[in-house]
Amino acid sequence: MTSGETEPRARLDEFALIAKLFAPLTQNMPGAFALTDDVAVLAPPAGHKVVLKTDSLIEGVHFLRSDPPALVARKGLRRALSDLAAKGAEPCVYLLALALPPWPDMEWLRAFADGLGADQAEFGLSLVGGETNATPGPLTLTVTAVGYVPNCALIRRNGARAGDRVYVTGTIGDAGCGLRLATGNAATVSEGARAFLVSRYRLPIPRLSTGLALRGIASAALDVSDGLLADLGHVADVSGVRIEIDAAEIPLSTALRELWGDSIEARSRAAGAGDDYEIAFTAAAPGSPALSEIARRTSTAITPIGRVVAGHGVAFLDRAGKEILVETKGYTHY
Amino acid sequence: MTSGETEPRARLDEFALIAKLFAPLTQNMPGAFALTDDVAVLAPPAGHKVVLKTDSLIEGVHFLRSDPPALVARKGLRRALSDLAAKGAEPCVYLLALALPPWPDMEWLRAFADGLGADQAEFGLSLVGGETNATPGPLTLTVTAVGYVPNCALIRRNGARAGDRVYVTGTIGDAGCGLRLATGNAATVSEGARAFLVSRYRLPIPRLSTGLALRGIASAALDVSDGLLADLGHVADVSGVRIEIDAAEIPLSTALRELWGDSIEARSRAAGAGDDYEIAFTAAAPGSPALSEIARRTSTAITPIGRVVAGHGVAFLDRAGKEILVETKGYTHY
Repeated sequence: MTSGETEPRARLDEFALIAKLFAPLTQNMPGAFALTDDVAVLAPPAGHKVVLKTDSLIEGVHFLRSDPPALVARKGLRRALSDLAAKGAEPCVYLLALALPPWPDMEWLRAFADGLGADQAEFGLSLVGGETNATPGPLTLTVTAVGYVPNCALIRRNGARAGDRVYVTGTIGDAGCGLRLATGNAATVSEGARAFLVSRYRLPIPRLSTGLALRGIASAALDVSDGLLADLGHVADVSGVRIEIDAAEIPLSTALRELWGDSIEARSRAAGAGDDYEIAFTAAAPGSPALSEIARRTSTAITPIGRVVAGHGVAFLDRAGKEILVETKGYTHY
Repeated sequence: MTSGETEPRARLDEFALIAKLFAPLTQNMPGAFALTDDVAVLAPPAGHKVVLKTDSLIEGVHFLRSDPPALVARKGLRRALSDLAAKGAEPCVYLLALALPPWPDMEWLRAFADGLGADQAEFGLSLVGGETNATPGPLTLTVTAVGYVPNCALIRRNGARAGDRVYVTGTIGDAGCGLRLATGNAATVSEGARAFLVSRYRLPIPRLSTGLALRGIASAALDVSDGLLADLGHVADVSGVRIEIDAAEIPLSTALRELWGDSIEARSRAAGAGDDYEIAFTAAAPGSPALSEIARRTSTAITPIGRVVAGHGVAFLDRAGKEILVETKGYTHY
């Protein structure tokens, strides 16, 4: 926290209240000191490495002021958890830096803390440290998620090899469509489909159990945030390979099909939409029996969508194997 | 990074450029993956715990848009390092989340990265992870500093005991005064004093070597950010003791005395000013010979300023031992 020269005294009092509000979220983790000390302390389990991810959620960019505060909190947390999931890491604790404008009242903050608590219970996490600063700008929460992974078990981006197959969990495009619905797109759509798609945008599901199960099986993985094709472009780039995706295999939810249909054009939009927070990964072929078992055990669809070949870049192919020019593929730096 | 739905494609390209600009700052740390993967991985040394601190630096609150970008970067880093220093932890790596408005150009960002590089060299650090997001608001950098401390060596806030003495490193009040000078206070002051005071505001010095040397000697410690008296209030509160500070003993720099004199009133202002990033600590009396040796070895003044007694709260005493009512003491929640 900064000096009284730059932060009004009243805000320092408010921030102390916030620390008290958030203190129960530490759940008596010994190294959190109930947020009464300056740092958090962790003792990683023997034979494990520490896995870290920091990311921000920003009002007006990633959420709206009118969004339910619990969902804002959970989305901020889940974005970071999703990265750990895709790497086969097990999240354990997190730190929270809050840049707080004047508008949120204690009721908003309490609901925000409740949202964190709900996800902590769901994912087995504790808050271990935090800091609140005043901002004249949008509310910005920065989560640093900390997890553990056994030595050598981390699933990197750079392990894709020619001959591997490419897979993705869940369905693609829901969040991109949900954002359009949430921001006033008046598409004719059933209430059920609308609710599903908007919740896929507002509350991503980090695929933690699937990620853990993919240790030793996936050769490369990441979570889909920029868009399936853009993100697979990252894998292709750092692995030094070419990735071919079969457009017809992109998994679409029933709700998304209700709006967009299941044409190649719909699948192209889905593959460029982003914010899916599914895991895209590669694995040596044939991996299907093990993957079917993982899908069953973690109640998460795993769909084969393409293959890794020699070369570079990402190709999006129609049923005839001809490359489709996708409008949204050109924005990556590959 | 969020989806193309909410971030313009051009910004995603820009963020990829920033990752490339920052990649050399990882200095080939194996777990940083040159910023080409989603997470950072650390292997803490045996017998050590991991110490974590996250904090944000916000344009318009903690720095001005016109400030030199290298200083902005270094101040953001040093605020977090200062917390580790006061705990006796050795910082090793850090993660950086950048909320980036449209105004900084690549030249600004390059100078910002150079500032990080300069401090990395000075403090023996590496960047291991980062994320850039677009913001419609002020530039906000959130640093998560990661350090190590031998098991049980962490210096807590809650260890102060009646009979201990209270100490502070360096001088107090310089940064508070420097901020007023930097923001246009037209006080008559020598160029040398002005430069010193402004630099104390812009570029705090984390007392890392002194903090390490205080392991096993300090019974409680924290870095002075809210203001000396307010921060000692935190120590008194969680230690369950009363702290008495002798106003006349507050160490003032020559430059500060040139502006404020060395009256009790000047010392009161200094003790309430904040942003000093010195270490305030308690230690069993008599600790003076060991502390003199630490001060000499780390080239950092260590001044006894008071004592720990039974009771609660912080008292600021004049030469006659009478409590001085300090305007800025009332804003703490103690």
